[in-house]
Amino acid sequence: MSHIGYRGKGLEFLTKNKIEIGDLVKVQTDSTYSGILMPRYEHSDDEHIVLKLKNGYNIGLQIEKIIKIEVESRHSVKKENITQLRTDPKLPKILLISTGGTIASKIDYRTGGVYPALTAAELNASVPEISEIANIDTEVLFSEYSENLLPEHWIKIAEKLDSYSRSEYKGIIVAHGTDTMHYTAAALSFSLSGFPKPVALVGSQRSSDRPSSDAALNLISAARFLVETDTSGIFVVMHNSISDDEVACHWGTRVRKNHTSKRNAFQTIGGSPAFIVKKDVIEKDPLFSPLKKTYNPRINFDSQVMLVKYYPGLDPKLIDYAMSSGYKAIIFEGTGLGHVGKVMHESIARMKRNGLFVGMTSQCIDGIVRMTVYDSGRDLLNLGVIPLGNMIPETALVKSMWALGNTRDINEMEKIMQENIASEISD
Amino acid sequence: MSHIGYRGKGLEFLTKNKIEIGDLVKVQTDSTYSGILMPRYEHSDDEHIVLKLKNGYNIGLQIEKIIKIEVESRHSVKKENITQLRTDPKLPKILLISTGGTIASKIDYRTGGVYPALTAAELNASVPEISEIANIDTEVLFSEYSENLLPEHWIKIAEKLDSYSRSEYKGIIVAHGTDTMHYTAAALSFSLSGFPKPVALVGSQRSSDRPSSDAALNLISAARFLVETDTSGIFVVMHNSISDDEVACHWGTRVRKNHTSKRNAFQTIGGSPAFIVKKDVIEKDPLFSPLKKTYNPRINFDSQVMLVKYYPGLDPKLIDYAMSSGYKAIIFEGTGLGHVGKVMHESIARMKRNGLFVGMTSQCIDGIVRMTVYDSGRDLLNLGVIPLGNMIPETALVKSMWALGNTRDINEMEKIMQENIASEISD
Repeated sequence: MSHIGYRGKGLEFLTKNKIEIGDLVKVQTDSTYSGILMPRYEHSDDEHIVLKLKNGYNIGLQIEKIIKIEVESRHSVKKENITQLRTDPKLPKILLISTGGTIASKIDYRTGGVYPALTAAELNASVPEISEIANIDTEVLFSEYSENLLPEHWIKIAEKLDSYSRSEYKGIIVAHGTDTMHYTAAALSFSLSGFPKPVALVGSQRSSDRPSSDAALNLISAARFLVETDTSGIFVVMHNSISDDEVACHWGTRVRKNHTSKRNAFQTIGGSPAFIVKKDVIEKDPLFSPLKKTYNPRINFDSQVMLVKYYPGLDPKLIDYAMSSGYKAIIFEGTGLGHVGKVMHESIARMKRNGLFVGMTSQCIDGIVRMTVYDSGRDLLNLGVIPLGNMIPETALVKSMWALGNTRDINEMEKIMQENIASEISD
Repeated sequence: MSHIGYRGKGLEFLTKNKIEIGDLVKVQTDSTYSGILMPRYEHSDDEHIVLKLKNGYNIGLQIEKIIKIEVESRHSVKKENITQLRTDPKLPKILLISTGGTIASKIDYRTGGVYPALTAAELNASVPEISEIANIDTEVLFSEYSENLLPEHWIKIAEKLDSYSRSEYKGIIVAHGTDTMHYTAAALSFSLSGFPKPVALVGSQRSSDRPSSDAALNLISAARFLVETDTSGIFVVMHNSISDDEVACHWGTRVRKNHTSKRNAFQTIGGSPAFIVKKDVIEKDPLFSPLKKTYNPRINFDSQVMLVKYYPGLDPKLIDYAMSSGYKAIIFEGTGLGHVGKVMHESIARMKRNGLFVGMTSQCIDGIVRMTVYDSGRDLLNLGVIPLGNMIPETALVKSMWALGNTRDINEMEKIMQENIASEISD
């Protein structure tokens, strides 16, 4: 019998009731729950069992409070079965590309930690509900935590997506770590501007063996989003609310990870998510109006850009270091409406004389950079600093790497940075 | 007659009705308003007049919709009167120290911009409601936009406050620009740990001539907070809600400017404001429990700290530059739970060999750094990176400058950085 991760009271309870992992069970406590018994991996207590409910949400149930438990059906998810995916010729096809992250993680028994390893096929097998929404093909592109991703990984993902731009797939899921998912989403939004299919970057904040894991719900919702809506472009599809029934589809250029651990960590900045996937319906934001663009892939990045968050005491010599090291652009995270202290003026003037691009965003994150209100802002405008509207700093950084990958002409770059390429600027 | 800033229809309307700036008027539109006619400075239309209501809130009224206007009393605020402040021996005394910022701004007619110039006395005179709450003394310490402030300014403010620590004042208001107000609040919280009086840093997001200015309401609320509550320590006192009747008193170490322009730009991160000043009452957060500390001023800062926000493509050579330039500490704004890419490992190892302090915060801003969950985090812990809990990055930066100003012993510094000095760490 399979009881991975259960011990003590939990193991005793399961053995006594002849229940094993993968069984669909009905449990009566204060309320009645029906779901699949999940394995447990982490250093967890022995007081609870974990069920995955039909909506993809995991809950922990305290054994002492269980009045009755019975098996509805034996349904062991065995690794041997992973390639035997159901296919239904009436359903659309979607592709799942795996790049790593918690959503594609296993637990390392040696260290007790989580590491990225699960293949997309295993992922698919562990969330069989997806096969009722679409026929899924899976592909492992690489397997990295997203904190280790570099612009070269963005290029790999973009090239892979580009290769499927005219394919039969209705849409594509990219399983991705959450740490830098918003950077990747911005990179894909610019380099694949006008991409003709919907792409859903999906991750999970909590691994799939944990109670309250968001992995299955996010995947199921992403599949529904791709199949049920008629949109295109790059989206981040992640848990939306503290309750367990909403998933948000964020614009790829306007999203940020704003909490270290909450399942609803991702937020659209300066607006609402483009779509909300609810239990029975997918709601479109009335203000969502994607730019109509012809597909124009330009998959080039040059990472000679420095993101500088301004703070009291920042030594302006940093800027001279950047110049002497060959950086070609600086994106400031200024204060307030887009300011840096006047101690920076001389260094900024030198950068402009040397032909660097200098763009201004705000460390406030929300709101618009307006550099005409105060002397501080006007002085910077006069020095040649380019205000970047309400572009979030991470998006501005990625966009400048992309712009620099596509042009070396500073005037052209200034134009690109102020042009709305992928809904990164709104008002 | 004084009609500063009014022109066209507005000027005509005021002249016809024999109303001038400073008059208390009653205006009937859809509703009836009673307030003081305010001057207008910015490039404003001529369709509105601006009244300051009794609660300190400015509104703009469309002239076309005014059915009736009448003077309730002539009450010109003349500069000649500024030193003739009312004093009431029954009221407590508070001190207002001005450092600059929008709250202490005038409009420059030449450029049309706002610059810091108003003295604290003028400020006091322009918000006469304060004199009903307390007897105010005022003092101009300096007059700078807060984006220009440096750690030496923090020292000046701290020394000034320290000089009043045993004074007769019930509390002290520091008028301050909003751009870096939260950095200053953190600096004062650490350097004046256990300060025996309440200190309210107050700014305004919109200058006092504008409709919907928050200047007067913030000042009045700060005065009430100092007089009506029985607390001590450093707080940021700023507009709380989109409606016009709430002001929040944020912990000095847990507050951040999260919007470039909204009046309620300041937010307590990872909790609620310590107090909310409402129209008739000041509500205390039930979770607010300040650390009980003996006053122990240590007004020393060393700014040889670099704040590094990690992003895909960050060149680890930046770290080598920091080392060769004499930096003694690095505060990372890592991704997610407190990660940086493995490309940084070698540089971090070199920093640790060279005795630098390396602290980890998260660019998610909200949530707690937990570096034991993933391999990525554990690897960094093994390299000697110090996790800084839920300390916000700006506070961690300021604290490390302060710690470095008070010790050169790396072990002592690591201890200080993880110790809760001024409620900067919670959970």
